[in-house]
Amino acid sequence: MATTSEVYTSNHRNFPMVPKVVFGRGSFNQVGEIISCERKGIAPFIYLIDSVFEKNITFIEDRIPLSSTDEIIYVSTAEEPKTSQVDEIVAKIKKDYQYTPSGIIGIGGGSILDLSKAVSIMLTNPGSASEYQGWDLVKNKAVFHVGVPTISGTGAEVSRTTVLTGPERKLGINSDFTPFDQVILDPELIKDVPKDQWFYTGMDCYIHCVESLHGTYLNAFSQSYGEKALDLCKEIFVSNSLSKEEADAKLMMASWHGGMSIAYSQVGVAHAMSYGLAYVLGTKHGIGNCIVFDKLGKYYPEGVAVFKKMKEIHGISLPVGVCADVTEDQLNIMTSVALSLEPLWENALGTDWKSKVNADTLKEIYRSL
Amino acid sequence: MATTSEVYTSNHRNFPMVPKVVFGRGSFNQVGEIISCERKGIAPFIYLIDSVFEKNITFIEDRIPLSSTDEIIYVSTAEEPKTSQVDEIVAKIKKDYQYTPSGIIGIGGGSILDLSKAVSIMLTNPGSASEYQGWDLVKNKAVFHVGVPTISGTGAEVSRTTVLTGPERKLGINSDFTPFDQVILDPELIKDVPKDQWFYTGMDCYIHCVESLHGTYLNAFSQSYGEKALDLCKEIFVSNSLSKEEADAKLMMASWHGGMSIAYSQVGVAHAMSYGLAYVLGTKHGIGNCIVFDKLGKYYPEGVAVFKKMKEIHGISLPVGVCADVTEDQLNIMTSVALSLEPLWENALGTDWKSKVNADTLKEIYRSL
Repeated sequence: MATTSEVYTSNHRNFPMVPKVVFGRGSFNQVGEIISCERKGIAPFIYLIDSVFEKNITFIEDRIPLSSTDEIIYVSTAEEPKTSQVDEIVAKIKKDYQYTPSGIIGIGGGSILDLSKAVSIMLTNPGSASEYQGWDLVKNKAVFHVGVPTISGTGAEVSRTTVLTGPERKLGINSDFTPFDQVILDPELIKDVPKDQWFYTGMDCYIHCVESLHGTYLNAFSQSYGEKALDLCKEIFVSNSLSKEEADAKLMMASWHGGMSIAYSQVGVAHAMSYGLAYVLGTKHGIGNCIVFDKLGKYYPEGVAVFKKMKEIHGISLPVGVCADVTEDQLNIMTSVALSLEPLWENALGTDWKSKVNADTLKEIYRSL
Repeated sequence: MATTSEVYTSNHRNFPMVPKVVFGRGSFNQVGEIISCERKGIAPFIYLIDSVFEKNITFIEDRIPLSSTDEIIYVSTAEEPKTSQVDEIVAKIKKDYQYTPSGIIGIGGGSILDLSKAVSIMLTNPGSASEYQGWDLVKNKAVFHVGVPTISGTGAEVSRTTVLTGPERKLGINSDFTPFDQVILDPELIKDVPKDQWFYTGMDCYIHCVESLHGTYLNAFSQSYGEKALDLCKEIFVSNSLSKEEADAKLMMASWHGGMSIAYSQVGVAHAMSYGLAYVLGTKHGIGNCIVFDKLGKYYPEGVAVFKKMKEIHGISLPVGVCADVTEDQLNIMTSVALSLEPLWENALGTDWKSKVNADTLKEIYRSL
């Protein structure tokens, strides 16, 4: 663990938190009651739900209290969320309804949660979502939005950003209006996540914490959240002392604390290189981080050793030969995308990071994947 | 540690969180900027500040950006906060100003933070603060209120209640409108707390966590926050590896996480008995908890052993003979106040707590203090 290297400055980030949260098995049953006071006349509530639930009617649809004009929109998460996808959903809602919705309720993993945050912003702000990728570009308050995670690990339920692939870049809409107004943490909702996805998404939290706790940007606020998330990940993925119910509840909290730790910290080498991979090959975030992190023993020796143990315990086989057919041109693009994320490298390796890593270092790692 | 004994119910508490927080050394310098967007014309900001700072002009007053009609009110914390004290401050503000204030900024320890939350509520709700002691009795949103802790441990900066002594009872104003709209966590502000007060207030957090983690009311949300707060307390008060700056920053986070852990947990034997002590002798909360907890080895063996070690490391001598001059009548009142707090006993000892503890058990402990 890095020690707290907090800089005395007079410009600390004022961090918005989710103002209301309910936690508990079965708490999803309270959704109707929770949103009722936000209903504005006939303006509908729109539920954005991962399309994997489309066929599982008993699990979700029967429990959603649709009234009058309310609607469920199923959203595919086959690919990482795009600004064009946000624009399409917003256009559909505007076409179908005379009134701005009373609220958006996102039910799914990180992709659905990020899409839901973005849609709620774009319903009250003009133009395309791509115009708001960056920091504090949003001018108008979003419509009321609720996050209901059904996969845990990304921290999207509590973060101040949305990760979106736009026409020009993969970058979040990072603003004070982004966080959910309400989050419902019901551990029962994550019990049926397929094992590989459970592992890769949980590792999103684990890897994030290893990177931020080893980083130079940390303060005591983020350190305390990151340490707790990391401890929970080890309890869940290394020890075998938890029941499935306990492990689900704790993973939900690991994701929550991991998301909170982002406030005053930064990710590192695995995220930078994973972005490069995603940019060229479209590799999804969770598995991409795992593929890269597995080869980063030089940078995070203890974290990678524990990761390998976790893989072994849960019988996870990462894809191999991921970059076998990658051309030299593609490799150059990957490398340059990764190296362009300067704050991540500075956090990981210090201000003199350019003396420690270069295009050749990265190409060698990419070729080994 | 108790394991998570979470009950599957469809009525989990929807918990309000502080929606904005800034953390960092020197972050208090941002107060003017942070509150500026909440200023409503000539309606003042009122600063409620612990009177111990009245003579320390360079530390606080020089750094407060008073504009036009803004005012500082110094408040004594010689006694635990009272509903009558809240009513007096509200009456003064209403007499002095034509407009409802733009906001209340509380700067101090748990007492000042609780008073500030209560004053901000009573500026927009009619009657006396004593009429709102209880759960969800507040009807109108409070005025914008900011909490700036200068002592850490109570968790008052993040909790949904205010602990107030009223004409009839000591009970908080527990409502969704109680939490601060903004908290400023500047570890530099707690650096000069006198050692005894630093210890007793830190132990408020420690004892709370021991009680809640051993309780039967816990779920994974509160467990994760409580465990982190407890780990930080041990790091601060047992290990000697931290610099003063690191320890201050971590204590601020221990208090924060301890306060968050209250959401779905309950305190236990020490708090119940400490309330009895406070009711009869006026013993302040922090030291009262320590005096009682020191004698509770039977109920919290590991927690009390670590507590005794902490006392030794920091050379803390608890008052002795506290109940030496207490009459039998006073002892009866103490005992009956303590036993009336049924949820605390049920949390600590289970639903059959009455078979495990009675008035005689408590009197014996009180006499030993």
